[in-house]
Amino acid sequence: MTEVLSSAVTIARDLLRCPSVTPAEGGALQALEKTLQSAGFAVSRVTFSDTGTPDIENLFATIGEGRPHFVFAGHTDVVPPGDLAAWRHGPFDGTIEDGVLYGRGAVDMKGGIASFAAAALAFLADRGPAFGGTISFLITGDEEGPAVNGTVKLLDWAKAQGHRFDACIVGEPTNPAALGDAIKVGRRGSLSGTITVTGTQGHVAYPHLARNPIPGLLQLLAALDGLTLDQGNDRFEPSNLEIVSVDVGNPAFNVIPARAEGRFNIRYNDIWTLAGLKDRITATLQAAAPQGLAYTLDFKRDASESFLTHDETLIRSLSDAVEAETGRRPDLSTGGGTSDARFIKNHCPVVEFGLVGQTMHKVNECVALDDLDRLAAIYLRFLQAYFPRREG
Amino acid sequence: MTEVLSSAVTIARDLLRCPSVTPAEGGALQALEKTLQSAGFAVSRVTFSDTGTPDIENLFATIGEGRPHFVFAGHTDVVPPGDLAAWRHGPFDGTIEDGVLYGRGAVDMKGGIASFAAAALAFLADRGPAFGGTISFLITGDEEGPAVNGTVKLLDWAKAQGHRFDACIVGEPTNPAALGDAIKVGRRGSLSGTITVTGTQGHVAYPHLARNPIPGLLQLLAALDGLTLDQGNDRFEPSNLEIVSVDVGNPAFNVIPARAEGRFNIRYNDIWTLAGLKDRITATLQAAAPQGLAYTLDFKRDASESFLTHDETLIRSLSDAVEAETGRRPDLSTGGGTSDARFIKNHCPVVEFGLVGQTMHKVNECVALDDLDRLAAIYLRFLQAYFPRREG
Ligand SMILES: [Zn+2]
Ligand SMILES: [Zn+2]
Repeated sequence: MTEVLSSAVTIARDLLRCPSVTPAEGGALQALEKTLQSAGFAVSRVTFSDTGTPDIENLFATIGEGRPHFVFAGHTDVVPPGDLAAWRHGPFDGTIEDGVLYGRGAVDMKGGIASFAAAALAFLADRGPAFGGTISFLITGDEEGPAVNGTVKLLDWAKAQGHRFDACIVGEPTNPAALGDAIKVGRRGSLSGTITVTGTQGHVAYPHLARNPIPGLLQLLAALDGLTLDQGNDRFEPSNLEIVSVDVGNPAFNVIPARAEGRFNIRYNDIWTLAGLKDRITATLQAAAPQGLAYTLDFKRDASESFLTHDETLIRSLSDAVEAETGRRPDLSTGGGTSDARFIKNHCPVVEFGLVGQTMHKVNECVALDDLDRLAAIYLRFLQAYFPRREG
Repeated sequence: MTEVLSSAVTIARDLLRCPSVTPAEGGALQALEKTLQSAGFAVSRVTFSDTGTPDIENLFATIGEGRPHFVFAGHTDVVPPGDLAAWRHGPFDGTIEDGVLYGRGAVDMKGGIASFAAAALAFLADRGPAFGGTISFLITGDEEGPAVNGTVKLLDWAKAQGHRFDACIVGEPTNPAALGDAIKVGRRGSLSGTITVTGTQGHVAYPHLARNPIPGLLQLLAALDGLTLDQGNDRFEPSNLEIVSVDVGNPAFNVIPARAEGRFNIRYNDIWTLAGLKDRITATLQAAAPQGLAYTLDFKRDASESFLTHDETLIRSLSDAVEAETGRRPDLSTGGGTSDARFIKNHCPVVEFGLVGQTMHKVNECVALDDLDRLAAIYLRFLQAYFPRREG
């Protein structure tokens, strides 16, 4: 083991000891600030506010000069630990046992941040601050929360400060089973909606005096459920629609209710634009609705477009680094849920690569020390490739 | 107007002034007891208890000897008045304005009880207690409530006391628009059930790791909704199934839920037995369920069989009395909801006839004084026909 690798473990353990459950900063940004300052980074702590949500602390750190400008993105906030009694070690103790580091955020994603910080420190120790470009950290404390006072505002803040990014790696845990499985090079879009059918309340014994909204809703939901949106393509899985809830809330067996609601979410690929998909859903319901059915369709405002990153230099540099350390060429995946990459992609090409996700959001979240060290080695190889030594 | 008719109004007004919202007796049974005792009835007040429900007072009154034994059934409890500000008169004031008596219970069914009491008093004044049979009142205070400590237990109590009934009129408001519209000679049965589909919770981005219970439930409910149970017959409307609720209760758009529930109620005619109908529903779901769907079907325990009364003497005597007073031959109906007749039919032939139901359970529930008097006259004609003067 080299000194670089020990550094990743040390930084990770220090971060895990900060109880930074969203929206609490918990000392995590403070710890990261000290680490990065020691290597010469200029660190800004930026707090954002909005009505109805807690204030959130974020961190932006930068070193070097000029282009290319590479940014590493991540979050120090974590989800709550859940059932404390089920943890074998305290979720904020940072306990190491048998080569494994335990704690909430171990893989999602304080471990990823620690590995990248260790890599950056090693890279700067070797190359000095005049390495021929800029390296920044874009770290939010609001990824697991409403994400209102986090990455979106921090990107705008950095832009206002004059920063223009050329490429980004988000350090989320992208590997399903083992380090090196997959780099995420895009994400499906997400569209949610609510269908509300209105009828007329009445007594079940007098159905002719009532209008039951449920059968109409069942027809609309069956039409959505039966929809084949596409077959996918070489980079994306087929788009998928899930009906996530149906709710009437009528406690009485002898009452026909006045209102019934169904809710759905679609994860869709780049065959669709958001607008085109909305049109398709709207038309499907119109075609399926029985004559005279009174219903509304409301799309949620937080919809996101799908995206696919086309920066071959970024993808190849990272893939080569992964292969060199793990012996495997990573899949270029677009599966899984959304992440802050959906915001970053509006500023620069972005890919995602981090630890193994299996224990994320679970009790006994943990990471092998060896994975932390190998991820740091991968990130270091990437930086070396991305910022090649200049001739002469 | 004769003195009989004024008596109905007086008794009704006195009953309406008792605030007997279920489970409160409110003085209503006390008032009725005094009225009936004054005419020579032997009156029993019987209180029933059960764990989990309030104690309920009931009343049984009887006069005469031997058969035929006719029993009038009803309830003095009422539903809550609702929005007090919307009442033009206090709901328990018994105010008379422009020939109309206002109050909660005016038609459902203190008015019906008052009309029958007035009829019985007139009949006894004319014929004396040796009129050639027995007349009883079976009055519960638990019809609008859980009905646990009411008619069922009072029937058993009366049976244990040696009473055997030959015929019963329930004084519920059976007329949709005008006095004389309809006698109920039967009721549809009622069967309620809950379908629960179990799946596996997961994230919408990873549907292959989850099993969404909603599509399967939609298929089961669509099969129920598409079921044509029968076409009805000359005495009954077609049986009807209503899906009354569908509930998942999943607040998150990005989560596939683990469980979905649908609930239904069937009002069914005498083409079906309860057991046969349960078999049909069970088989329909089995045929509709996708391979491997994990679901349960639970029928509610309060199911009731349909029934049809075949006592032509009872039906004809009452129909003749209605026609003589109103000039119209009443429909022999089996429509509408269930009533305590479903319990009484296990003891003797039962029909239902009372006031006009339009204002029942609404604010400003009221009855025309003329309707109270005419209903008393109908009941009196019925008693005269049912207990004919003996020759000699
Ligand atoms: Zn994360
Ligand atoms: Zn009633």
